[in-house]
Amino acid sequence: MAKVQKAFGSRLRELRQEQCLTQEGLAHLAGLNRTYIGDIERGEKNITLESMDKLARALGINLRDFFDWEY
Amino acid sequence: MAKVQKAFGSRLRELRQEQCLTQEGLAHLAGLNRTYIGDIERGEKNITLESMDKLARALGINLRDFFDWEY
Repeated sequence: MAKVQKAFGSRLRELRQEQCLTQEGLAHLAGLNRTYIGDIERGEKNITLESMDKLARALGINLRDFFDWEY
Repeated sequence: MAKVQKAFGSRLRELRQEQCLTQEGLAHLAGLNRTYIGDIERGEKNITLESMDKLARALGINLRDFFDWEY
């Protein structure tokens, strides 16, 4: 499991929980599958740019905000 | 071709050229295939987080820097 995947997953979880969204709620907003969200948050998936874009739009954030982390 | 792919491709080309690197040079530094770099820059590939991480390391930048754009 790549370190960057783990870091991104933790950041996504943080951003999702800040908005009091469930994985299901975020999946619905982003047009993605709930299990995919869970896999990403556990660092088990190598997310693509398009999925990141969908998640950023669903969260109402800029793609850059995903990477405001110490990594 | 997704808009976000096109935007990322242009940004990657900009960052690469700022460092006077050829596609071949960047591919070598990042451990990626040169044709893959060309495809990404033309917006023809849906790049993954791990490839972004390899490119950021090769360019000596933070992942966040890829997304300092008006998109």
